[in-house]
Amino acid sequence: MFKLRSLVTALALVGSISVASALETLPTVAPAPADNPTTQEKVELGKLLYHDPRLSSTGTVSCSSCHNTMLGGEDNRANSMGVHGQTGGRSAPTVWNSAFNTVQFWDGRAPSLEAQAAGPVTSPIEMGMKSWDDVIARLKTIEGYQVAFEEAFGKDSITKDNATKAIASYERTLITPHSPYDKYAAGDTSALTAQQVRGLHKVQELGCTSCHSGPAFNGPGVFQPFPIHSNPVFAAKYHFKDDKGLAEVTKKADDEHLWKVPTLRNIALTAPYFHNGSVKTLDEAVVVMAKTQLDKDLSTTEVADIVAFLNALTGQFPKQSMPVLPTTPGRTFN
Amino acid sequence: MFKLRSLVTALALVGSISVASALETLPTVAPAPADNPTTQEKVELGKLLYHDPRLSSTGTVSCSSCHNTMLGGEDNRANSMGVHGQTGGRSAPTVWNSAFNTVQFWDGRAPSLEAQAAGPVTSPIEMGMKSWDDVIARLKTIEGYQVAFEEAFGKDSITKDNATKAIASYERTLITPHSPYDKYAAGDTSALTAQQVRGLHKVQELGCTSCHSGPAFNGPGVFQPFPIHSNPVFAAKYHFKDDKGLAEVTKKADDEHLWKVPTLRNIALTAPYFHNGSVKTLDEAVVVMAKTQLDKDLSTTEVADIVAFLNALTGQFPKQSMPVLPTTPGRTFN
Repeated sequence: MFKLRSLVTALALVGSISVASALETLPTVAPAPADNPTTQEKVELGKLLYHDPRLSSTGTVSCSSCHNTMLGGEDNRANSMGVHGQTGGRSAPTVWNSAFNTVQFWDGRAPSLEAQAAGPVTSPIEMGMKSWDDVIARLKTIEGYQVAFEEAFGKDSITKDNATKAIASYERTLITPHSPYDKYAAGDTSALTAQQVRGLHKVQELGCTSCHSGPAFNGPGVFQPFPIHSNPVFAAKYHFKDDKGLAEVTKKADDEHLWKVPTLRNIALTAPYFHNGSVKTLDEAVVVMAKTQLDKDLSTTEVADIVAFLNALTGQFPKQSMPVLPTTPGRTFN
Repeated sequence: MFKLRSLVTALALVGSISVASALETLPTVAPAPADNPTTQEKVELGKLLYHDPRLSSTGTVSCSSCHNTMLGGEDNRANSMGVHGQTGGRSAPTVWNSAFNTVQFWDGRAPSLEAQAAGPVTSPIEMGMKSWDDVIARLKTIEGYQVAFEEAFGKDSITKDNATKAIASYERTLITPHSPYDKYAAGDTSALTAQQVRGLHKVQELGCTSCHSGPAFNGPGVFQPFPIHSNPVFAAKYHFKDDKGLAEVTKKADDEHLWKVPTLRNIALTAPYFHNGSVKTLDEAVVVMAKTQLDKDLSTTEVADIVAFLNALTGQFPKQSMPVLPTTPGRTFN
């Protein structure tokens, strides 16, 4: 981890460079790691696995239950609900454009979509499977999966490694380009309203785009501290510091309250906000961020302008076909 | 309710008429009630509502959670799991071809798909909404629903009546024609294997098709008693009689253990079986039905033949697009 406060300050200066050179459209294709090139067969298999509730102990929770591909890629809940109605302490991040995150999970503990996909399946409060061995054993009894894995990875290829690779391949197709902001960035000055343009300039001027930078507004710094400036009102209301972020994983004091910079793409669709989902509206999230990260008190107009701009980051959701999941004729899945 | 045992006997004779005249293909269009003609706009709206978990108190359970349109129209669980992980005593019936049921729910208490759709939303153990007023109030705050209801029903039309009409209209499109059986019934004698033809003849000869008759194998008698013949082994294992069926609703002794005749269409995909989901496999379900309803002990070969035939009732699932649910920019759904 690098020294973040100095980086924030340095990048705040970068944030004031001219608009024209700074705006980047969202790529329409996501990069894939060398050991998992995206293929249509993997995407199709991953789409099945992603939507299959039989990857959970109860047969009721799929990846899409909490990261809903029919909505903004999550569940609009403060904390997701896993098997047997259990809830954890964090809010589900959106799956849309997650391919453009350098690291995954709020605390950034997974270095790839592949690594992320392995996690929730065996979390006792999420999908509740006892082990990946159990998942693989179950998948092997479903003939349609034997076929789909063979098409994607070759014969007898139902493994945890391949299952997570397929899910990641599918997730890399979940991109929402052509937002009003993208059209504006591509040169169509009529794509944003005057208020949205004011909001764009304001987030640059304030320094929001120092951390929320790049085409997905989630880089270049991978981790950032949150909250930077203590605020007793927010502390009492939102309890941000109850969760130590990356330090919960690494157990290092230096990592306390470090978080992955979340994308601002489709941010209007992913209420409630922050790692614990404690803030219900985007307006309030903007107020909180300005105060805790930049020590700024925004006027009502400034908040409205920024929120208008953030709404311009809502992209076009690709038309998808509904998967037809492979069946277990004459018996149940367990 | 009519005298069922005599009807069963009478129809058992009908079941032995020639194959050619008795086989009926599944219609590809479902009839709609006079006050709810199917329109594309209603179907589109109904598809949104059907897949929207925000019709539940927690935002986690949609119609499709238990009646999964990506699977065999249910969840392959003995009892479905509603909000907060709660379960009831009955197994979710399939939504596929439910348009061809004369009555809905296992106990047949709903006379239409419209009436059925109103139920689970406010059941405390299913979707958990306090009232339909709450559902409507929530839907009214979602701009995309204002538009979709207007297109389907005209201005300011977000009501319980219209919501359930739209869901029913969508469900009327969930038909799985062109099963091997349908092809056989249409004259393609190669569509069934020799074993499946033996199974078909066996279910007619035994009298299964007395109750499971017509193109959806769910008529003409609407209600039937189950189990007819008491069997101590099954009683101890499966507890069929713990649930009194229609009498749980009507409180009439005559209605005890009366049940809607469920469709056999896609029966291979809807394990586990019976109203309480107590029987895990189709093989065992066939053994149980022969014994409890017809007092017959089947040979292993007969069971295998019948199961082979029942697998021929698995239809072709229509390709569907995945709905893009209307969003609540900047805030949550509740």
